[in-house]
This record gives sequence, structure tokens and C-alpha cells, in this order.
Amino acid sequence: MIIDCHGHYTTAPKALEHWRNAQIAGIEDAALMPRVADLKISDDELRETIEANQLRLMNQRGSDLTIFSPRASFMAHHIGDFSVSSTWAAINNELCFRVARLFPDRFVPAAMLPQSPGVDPASCIPELVKCVEQYGNVGINLNPDPSGGHWTSPPLGDRHWYPIYEKMVEYDIPAMIHVSTSCNACFHTTGAHYLNADTTAFMQCLTSDLFKDFPTLKFLIPHGGGAVPYHWGRFRGLAQELKKPLLTEHLLKNIFFDTCVYHQPGIDLLTRVIPVDNILFASEMIGAVRGIDPETGHCFDDTKRYIEAAAIDAEQRFKIFEGNARRVFPRLDATLKGMGK
Amino acid sequence: MIIDCHGHYTTAPKALEHWRNAQIAGIEDAALMPRVADLKISDDELRETIEANQLRLMNQRGSDLTIFSPRASFMAHHIGDFSVSSTWAAINNELCFRVARLFPDRFVPAAMLPQSPGVDPASCIPELVKCVEQYGNVGINLNPDPSGGHWTSPPLGDRHWYPIYEKMVEYDIPAMIHVSTSCNACFHTTGAHYLNADTTAFMQCLTSDLFKDFPTLKFLIPHGGGAVPYHWGRFRGLAQELKKPLLTEHLLKNIFFDTCVYHQPGIDLLTRVIPVDNILFASEMIGAVRGIDPETGHCFDDTKRYIEAAAIDAEQRFKIFEGNARRVFPRLDATLKGMGK
Repeated sequence: MIIDCHGHYTTAPKALEHWRNAQIAGIEDAALMPRVADLKISDDELRETIEANQLRLMNQRGSDLTIFSPRASFMAHHIGDFSVSSTWAAINNELCFRVARLFPDRFVPAAMLPQSPGVDPASCIPELVKCVEQYGNVGINLNPDPSGGHWTSPPLGDRHWYPIYEKMVEYDIPAMIHVSTSCNACFHTTGAHYLNADTTAFMQCLTSDLFKDFPTLKFLIPHGGGAVPYHWGRFRGLAQELKKPLLTEHLLKNIFFDTCVYHQPGIDLLTRVIPVDNILFASEMIGAVRGIDPETGHCFDDTKRYIEAAAIDAEQRFKIFEGNARRVFPRLDATLKGMGK
Repeated sequence: MIIDCHGHYTTAPKALEHWRNAQIAGIEDAALMPRVADLKISDDELRETIEANQLRLMNQRGSDLTIFSPRASFMAHHIGDFSVSSTWAAINNELCFRVARLFPDRFVPAAMLPQSPGVDPASCIPELVKCVEQYGNVGINLNPDPSGGHWTSPPLGDRHWYPIYEKMVEYDIPAMIHVSTSCNACFHTTGAHYLNADTTAFMQCLTSDLFKDFPTLKFLIPHGGGAVPYHWGRFRGLAQELKKPLLTEHLLKNIFFDTCVYHQPGIDLLTRVIPVDNILFASEMIGAVRGIDPETGHCFDDTKRYIEAAAIDAEQRFKIFEGNARRVFPRLDATLKGMGK
């Protein structure tokens, strides 16, 4: 079984974007603020957007199941206040839940949180509880920078974030550490901000003792860990300078990397440097890079091909494709076992 | 000949740091502001700090020449105003010039600029002119984020930076794009901010048409290009989405990467992915990572070993060690030829 642990609903019906635009207009002029009930998306529309896109490519490429969360760049936690984020998160999480209910064998939902800059993350707990208990979500996406490229929140090791971590531990769900759109002109969203956030999050964990406080907390760092595996020697050396334990002890019981690295040499480095138990298959399809690589004739984001071509054995490949995801997402494993898988 | 294109004066006599602390105190209380003449560092002191450190390791590891600039983390352009930065830059550039004069066969200077957040970069030109014309500097370090982790300046493709570029083109000197200390708690200076800046700078160039305006402008992106080579497929794919030419055409006539990547797999990826003509040998010794790698028994930052072990031939190795540096730093080449080298 091949589990893609990183998929977003990037292909939602246009009505969603129109509703969001109305909501953004409503921030300035309350008379324009739409009601949640104004957004009408039928099951048929959901089915169409999935069958023509994600599901088509999953079938074509041969992946079985996608952990499916709201579009990352659309989370845009910097827009409006907590109330705006809260309504927006609820709408998006419900859509992913409905997709998963329509295709229960193929999509399992993960939640975005109604984060808002300067607001206590504890405010996200009710949405998180609903998503886990009522929607069957198996994980969350946690944005370490709800300001959208201004980095005004404390680092992930700070107690600021602990309310979220306590709930994650209680439910035994991991968080993918995933930023959203950059509203800082310095950072291109998918070409700089995403990768920078991955590197930043890892280093925030490295300098902290977060996993002493939460030994079972699990973070999934997307996009192959940003710059981290390429600079693994640098990070091992920095940990040594900072008198931290070896990274295998200090971080790798809690931190995992996905395989959203869009060329063979990158995946070869990842599988050479990072222990295979810490690597989870993912493509972020359909996402930032949708084209065909002229050097290979295949889609850049068809990452399954790179894993298949990597110098690893069948057992290692099984871990990356399935075993590790079941271990890092215990609620996914339980859901699958409930289906006899 | 082995040229290390990335060395900072990280081992300057303590008097320098004391003077800087006095200057910082003087920002708050003008009565405490030291005069430049208060800083007294003799040639003997300079010699000692170099012979016991950089020169010792250069001899031990077998590198011949270092392009030597002021300590990157000490530039701290976010401290004080232009006048503070200007005095501080002049002091540091003079020290590197003096080191180069004391060891003319082994060190060639590159300049820091007196950047200051919100101040027109044109204000840096007089210092740049002095460093090139009087001190024989062969390059500059350009900080894309003088705010120190708040990223308040425009991207590198913006006309904001053009006065610097015009002077660089006139003198035919490259800029290493190098940030300084992060004063944003989210970003560890050497574990996140440096690497993020490298990735960010590359993406800023990718989205711009900067090198159409300045076809001969040259940027050296340090720390192996941040996350860029590891995600080369992602960047090729993003360029394609953005309807830009192939990266070889669009950026690689102007952008170069150094080899400050502190483990063999990272250098193997770099040399596999990036054309050899775009790779310049560097160690950033003595810098962020000074320890011995327990996995190899050698210093993490002894990058020469990794180049020697990489799967490249003698001609490629020559380019990385010497040929490319002479091409990217034409004034270095002229200096060396003037010495009969």
C-alpha cells in the first residue's frame, strides 16, 4: 500500500475562492461579509474536482491513499482576526472531511487550524477536537508563522505552543509544520517561504528541549526537510557546538521528513543521509510544481518514481511508502485496520 | 593552487569586540561613544590571531589563499544608524586589508558594506570605492536583509539595489550574498537565517529579470546555495511554471555557489546537480561549525576533503579549487598574475 502523507485540496470548486474573496471584502466592510450558508458546494462538485485531478493522478502513478488537508497557501492565517480564521478553517476542514467521506478508501483528512497572529494557540483547540472526534482527522497542519513571512510568533520550542502540543499528545496525532502564503515580498511562497520554514522549524527544535517535555510529540517536516538533509553535517556540527545530544537521539525520535523533493538526486541524498525510519512518502500533488521535467519526461512531483529508483531495499521502501506513515499517524493505522487494511 | 573564496575574520583581537560594545553603548548615550582612534590593534596582534588560527588550518589542510572579509555575524547592520554602520564597516575593512598586507600570498580582502535598514544602498558606494581602489578588495559581501531577520528591504531584483550593482559591474567585482546576525528569535543565525537567506536570494533572482539589466553582474551564494541544489528539481519546475528560461540560461551565467556544505553527501549532491563551472571552493573556516565530525574524525568544515572525494575529474576539481574563482573574481586573478601566479 502506498500512502501519500502530504496532499492539499488545491483543486476545490471555484465557489470556495469566491466565498473567501467575499470574506476578505467583509473584513473591511461588514455589510459584505458572507454567511457560511452562502457557500454551496455539492457532493457531485467535490467528486468532480477530485476524480479529474488528485484521484486521476493517484491512479495513474499508483498511490493508494492520500492524507488530505486544506490548501496550504489558502490558509493565509495573516488575513483578518481569529473569527475570520476560525470560520475559514471550519469551512475548509469540512470540505476535506466530505472528500474523505466520498472516497473513504483513498483520502483521510488532516486539519488546518484557525491560527491568527498574536492569538493564543489554545483558541485552536475546539476546531482540532471537532476535526479529530467528529471528522476522523489523523493529523494537523501547524503554521509556525501565522503572520505570513514576518515571523512574529515565538519559536516552536516556546510554551506559547504547548496547548496544541498537549492536545496532540492526548490524541496521538502528529503535526505537519507547514506555513502558508507569504505576504512578505522578500519570500516567494513556494520557492522560499516553504523551504525556509522547514529549515527554521528544524533548527527551532534543535536549540530547544521541546521533546524532553513532550517525548511522544511528533512533527513531520515537509518538502524533504527544507535545507536540512543537504546540510546534515552542518546541523550535526551545530548540535555538537550547542552541547546537544546526537541528532538521532535529540530529534529523530520526534521529527520526520516527507519526500516532496522533485528530482532524483535530492531523494538520493535524503535516503542516504536521513534514517529510513524518519522518511515518509509524499508528493504534495497537485501543488506548487505541476509541470513535466524536460530532463525525464515525467512530472516533477511524481516522487514515487524517485523512491523506486533510490538505492534502498524492499523493506526500506515499504517503510517509506507505508510502514512509517502508519507509525507516525496511529489514527490512520487504526482507520485502515478498521477497513481491514 | 587552492583558493578558499569564503573566509571571515572571526578571530580578530578581543579589542575589536570591546570597541564594538562601546559603540553600541554610545548609540544610547553619546558620551560613551568611542572614537575610531581608541581602537588600537598592532600588526603583531593581527599576525598572532591569523597564524594561530586561519593560517595554521590553511597550512594543515592545504589551501593556499583565502578571500577574507569581516566576520559576517558581526556586521549586524541592524544596529544603530548609517553613521554607526559606516564607522564599523570602515574599521573592519581596514583590519582585513591589513591582514592581507601582512600575508599577501595568503589573504586577499573582500569588503563588508555600511548597510543600514531603510537607508539607500547608494550610501555604501564611498566605502566600496575605497575598498576596491585603495585596499585592493576583489569582492564585496552584500546583505539582502540589513534588518537582521525581519526582511524589510526590497528583494534583490528591485531597483533599490541598482546603485550597488552599477558599481559592481563597473569594477567587475562579484558580491557574496551574505546576511548577518539574526535579531529575530525565530531564526538561529547560522542554523536557519544564513541558509534561508541563500535560498531566498536565489528565488528573488529567479522571479526577477535582474540579469537582463546587468548581464555581467555576478552573485556568489554561500553555504552551498542554502536549500537550492537539494531542491534543484523544484526550482527548475518553478522557473518553468513562471515561464522563465531554463535555469542554466536564466541564472547560471550570473549565480555561483560555494562549497560550505559540511558533509560528503551534500558535496556529492552539489557536484552532481550544479554545473561544475558554477561551484567555487570555500570552507568558511573558522566559522559556525568548528568541531570534529565523530563520523569521520575530521573537522566538519574541512571541505577540501569532500571535494577531493567527490566523483569529479581532475579538470573539474581544478575549476572548483582555482579556475572558477579566477573567473568570478577577475580582480583576484589580476592580483595573482601580478604576483606571477
